[in-house]
Amino acid sequence: MTPSSLAGPLLTDLYEITMAAGYWRYDIRDRATFSVFARNPEKKRNYFVAAGLETLLQELESYRFQDGDLTYLQSLQLFEPGFLDALQRLRFTGDVHALPEGTLFFPEEPLLEITAPIIEAQLIETLVLNTIGIATLIATKAARCIHAAGGRPLVDFALRRTHGADAGDQVARSTYIAGFGGTSNLRAGQRFGIPVSGTMAHAFVTAFPSELAAFRAYAATFPHHTIFLIDTYDTLAGARNAATVALEMQARGHTAIGVRLDSGDMVALSREVRRILDQAGLPDMKIYASSSFDEEKIDATLRAGAPIDAFGVGTRVGVSADAPYLDIVYKLVRLGPRDIRKLSPGKVTLAGKKQIFRCRNAAGLYREDIIACREETVDNAEPLIEPVMAGGRRLNPPTALDDIRKNFDRQFALLDPRYKTIHEYIAYPVHTSTRLQALQA
Amino acid sequence: MTPSSLAGPLLTDLYEITMAAGYWRYDIRDRATFSVFARNPEKKRNYFVAAGLETLLQELESYRFQDGDLTYLQSLQLFEPGFLDALQRLRFTGDVHALPEGTLFFPEEPLLEITAPIIEAQLIETLVLNTIGIATLIATKAARCIHAAGGRPLVDFALRRTHGADAGDQVARSTYIAGFGGTSNLRAGQRFGIPVSGTMAHAFVTAFPSELAAFRAYAATFPHHTIFLIDTYDTLAGARNAATVALEMQARGHTAIGVRLDSGDMVALSREVRRILDQAGLPDMKIYASSSFDEEKIDATLRAGAPIDAFGVGTRVGVSADAPYLDIVYKLVRLGPRDIRKLSPGKVTLAGKKQIFRCRNAAGLYREDIIACREETVDNAEPLIEPVMAGGRRLNPPTALDDIRKNFDRQFALLDPRYKTIHEYIAYPVHTSTRLQALQA
Repeated sequence: MTPSSLAGPLLTDLYEITMAAGYWRYDIRDRATFSVFARNPEKKRNYFVAAGLETLLQELESYRFQDGDLTYLQSLQLFEPGFLDALQRLRFTGDVHALPEGTLFFPEEPLLEITAPIIEAQLIETLVLNTIGIATLIATKAARCIHAAGGRPLVDFALRRTHGADAGDQVARSTYIAGFGGTSNLRAGQRFGIPVSGTMAHAFVTAFPSELAAFRAYAATFPHHTIFLIDTYDTLAGARNAATVALEMQARGHTAIGVRLDSGDMVALSREVRRILDQAGLPDMKIYASSSFDEEKIDATLRAGAPIDAFGVGTRVGVSADAPYLDIVYKLVRLGPRDIRKLSPGKVTLAGKKQIFRCRNAAGLYREDIIACREETVDNAEPLIEPVMAGGRRLNPPTALDDIRKNFDRQFALLDPRYKTIHEYIAYPVHTSTRLQALQA
Repeated sequence: MTPSSLAGPLLTDLYEITMAAGYWRYDIRDRATFSVFARNPEKKRNYFVAAGLETLLQELESYRFQDGDLTYLQSLQLFEPGFLDALQRLRFTGDVHALPEGTLFFPEEPLLEITAPIIEAQLIETLVLNTIGIATLIATKAARCIHAAGGRPLVDFALRRTHGADAGDQVARSTYIAGFGGTSNLRAGQRFGIPVSGTMAHAFVTAFPSELAAFRAYAATFPHHTIFLIDTYDTLAGARNAATVALEMQARGHTAIGVRLDSGDMVALSREVRRILDQAGLPDMKIYASSSFDEEKIDATLRAGAPIDAFGVGTRVGVSADAPYLDIVYKLVRLGPRDIRKLSPGKVTLAGKKQIFRCRNAAGLYREDIIACREETVDNAEPLIEPVMAGGRRLNPPTALDDIRKNFDRQFALLDPRYKTIHEYIAYPVHTSTRLQALQA
């Protein structure tokens, strides 16, 4: 990532800066710990997949107000010069404890804790939530799709409908973490090294004198990467045209990969198309489908017996349409020597620095989690939160994206399948340790 | 906007480039017209508000593949060198016709038409949809909130929950176009000159020995910009503390602006808080509220008689939670001399270059629209689509954001109030002209 792609300290709400000015003026310099966790008020998710940490760490390591930022803040006529000078010198010098990306977590569990002088910790609140929120939202949605697809490859096609360019890149990265095979998004391919895929849209087909001519032109241009989009005029006629050109390719020693359905009744059409391809002697040609798929539609389509081999997954996953935001919060849980708890109605927080311990059952599957004090130990349980930054410096080089993907894959395999259902809410057991409970009193 | 904040040509799906390679190889150089319009399959919106054009025009004017982009494309081993050379030289040389930002439009109406050599027009598809989509989505959602708020000021608080940083900026810009008073987002304030606002969060209150101490510290730091957040411990006690400090401020010649409620029963609490402030002799202190508001909750809260003066509007508007994507498409409607129509099931498009004419009733309100051929004229109707770019050059300097806002305001005042309802779907009449119908045959 180049410095210019960093969001910078002005990715913040004004109130973070006014609060910082108040702390500065009143000489409140204590170290504060803020805890990041997700609530689940609508019970639409049985688990979450942590993501976005790498992006956040890059922002924190490079955190500094540029001259233009300070000029802008000065123009607001809110801040005294001494405070703006302090901002100019400010770097992020704090500690970060976090779940590694790709880790499963559950409502109310902290996925990240920041400990820093309160001014620093306050200033980064919005940055933390914005960065972690979109990445975790989409990794979670993508995991549900991976489960529904039962091993069939999925590709991210969401870029045109994501909420801007950043979101497009994060959607590609987060869906890849959760096991998607690749993305159509070239920025994300370039930036993160994610495999890219894509062939043709309807415009290409209509730009040639006939569908057959368009298919032949494509096959000649990309003989090793040919997937025919067959629904521009009539899907079954399109399948027959695809078969014709695939056989012509065979004669030249090339192999067409498959066809793509993009509209209509996916179950009926995929069956008819499969028969057409099989009868043409093309049993290895794959059927791709890409029409408003999400985990529900993938599941329903496959349960109905559709012979679809892979899915292009776009809009509804790229915006997490059934649950388009993560109810993620950043709460002060410790300031100097005091553990702090907020008691606003419906918004209670757990005071103190914390650790999550994950326990397994006899079969080796995840059985329950215990949220404990940071320094506790729990027998026969795996602590999940790791120190990742100390004194503003990363403790390790960035984790390779494929290793993050493996972490998710390993964890997802250990989650009892009943929690993976996309059809109902089943609460994974999360308890708090006796010591953490005592701290709340 | 600095060049580094541009998304660039790699904000695209791979298939745009593979199609371009096919056109290049087969020497398809015709001028193509693509039409951008929104479908409304779930009937959740009675109207849309066009936004995002300025961002798009900046991208198109600066459109060029950088060396790094070409190196990346080369690394995919898909493209022949001649095509990559062509991309290196490629600039956007096309024409753009569009609705001015802030203009109301309806399902199936083109808000943008691009005419350019087909390779250029194809390459920018994803960029166009991504850019226009998020901006229009949020401007539309924001207009619904403005209607529900009945003149009370709204402020965008969404940044922490938007889908990334770009989205945060676009949400601030689009909500401002639709009439929001400002944003908490400092990046957007800096970038677009939007007024910013914000005071304190719960952390600030808990960082001081008492709520009263926190309020006094804030009032001393920002004597002209004080809004007290009163729900950290107990909202009514908080209101009394706010009144105490507001009276202390009065004695120093300062005026507290108001209090903010952020949790609990907004109707009951706002009434109690109003009484506390009034009884303290502070009838001019405002009540701000900011707890999961969207148009539905604003409407319900005000109908229940809550004496709330202004709303901080966040997550649910910043992601357009009830309809988190615009079903916006980019369809080839003319290629060289041929008008083109796509007939896939449920995805029919209108061939040809188009214009929208808006007709008014006797009261001067918008009565119906007629989608016509580009060169038609319709008596007593206002043509809405304007040429904004020709030969890759803008025809006018950027429209000031406040003028865009005025355009929306003027148009929204002319929309018959029954279409503004947030409670039901009422279809605004949109017809196609006889000549455009004939073209479809």
